[in-house]
Amino acid sequence: MVRWEPGSRGRLEEAAMALYAERGYENTTVAAIAERAGLTERTFFRHFADKREVLFFGAGALQELLVGAIATAPRSATPMEAAAAALHAAGERFEEGRAHSVQRQRVIDANRELQERELIKLAALAAAIAEALRRRGVKDPAAGLTGEAAIAVFRIAFEQWVAESNRKRLTRLIDDSLAALKTIAGG
Amino acid sequence: MVRWEPGSRGRLEEAAMALYAERGYENTTVAAIAERAGLTERTFFRHFADKREVLFFGAGALQELLVGAIATAPRSATPMEAAAAALHAAGERFEEGRAHSVQRQRVIDANRELQERELIKLAALAAAIAEALRRRGVKDPAAGLTGEAAIAVFRIAFEQWVAESNRKRLTRLIDDSLAALKTIAGG
Repeated sequence: MVRWEPGSRGRLEEAAMALYAERGYENTTVAAIAERAGLTERTFFRHFADKREVLFFGAGALQELLVGAIATAPRSATPMEAAAAALHAAGERFEEGRAHSVQRQRVIDANRELQERELIKLAALAAAIAEALRRRGVKDPAAGLTGEAAIAVFRIAFEQWVAESNRKRLTRLIDDSLAALKTIAGG
Repeated sequence: MVRWEPGSRGRLEEAAMALYAERGYENTTVAAIAERAGLTERTFFRHFADKREVLFFGAGALQELLVGAIATAPRSATPMEAAAAALHAAGERFEEGRAHSVQRQRVIDANRELQERELIKLAALAAAIAEALRRRGVKDPAAGLTGEAAIAVFRIAFEQWVAESNRKRLTRLIDDSLAALKTIAGG
């Protein structure tokens, strides 16, 4: 029987994020994360495959959120309106924990392998948006292009949102970024 | 003194591409590439760092081409017009050797690590376009967003161009993709 340790996942995540910030991702071991959390390595591996997964386990839920929002967008919505609804849903979710997002982004920006992993995650999200649009009857290349464009819009908005000087909400920055894309593409 | 073997780089590239297509990238060794080209492994390593570089050494020249086209675009060009000029320049260059591009794409599509490497290359090109636009005085977020959007446009056009059924020129597909982005972003 696996012993249940209440809150252990959250404690491990918190310990990992603190250590990545203090010593750098490269210099942090699973043993150190478990120790900081007051748990065993075995418990760590019950929750995460490796120390990288602590930074990326949220991708699946984010993808579900995006895909769900596209599926439930009004039938009259254009492809970009449906994608924008999805980005808004993601924006609201991220807004609940900006401090965590800022900290995570700093860890990622400091490590090339993590930057690459983040790019791959974003490409998978673009592909998931495109696929959700195809299920609404959107044809290619519009579906593929909307997926890519939506993720570009999100990335630019997210970069601004995690900047130290930012005081705007992520959903607002997403709207600004969508408007900027409209101007750029029309020009 | 390093002995010069005329055409050895091209022979190695050709041998590598043939073997990647025949046995798969994973199952091809540098020794096999050198043997097929009638050269030594030592000669291979004078030209390429590893077997992956055979597929990616062109990225530097492509980036220079894009950046150069943006720098020399008319002063009156909008950010997206300058980026479109760069994509056109790239399109013309690729058009010279579609068979090679088709073969390379098949190798990449069959291997997850290569797909990831390709994504990272494309992200670097988007960043280079953005930086070239900033040197023309384009501010952020417009510069960053145009870089991302331009690469999304190129990717979609390139995917269509290497498809078996394709009969259109890459530059034409780039124009179609730019027009599609305009429609999508406006909607």
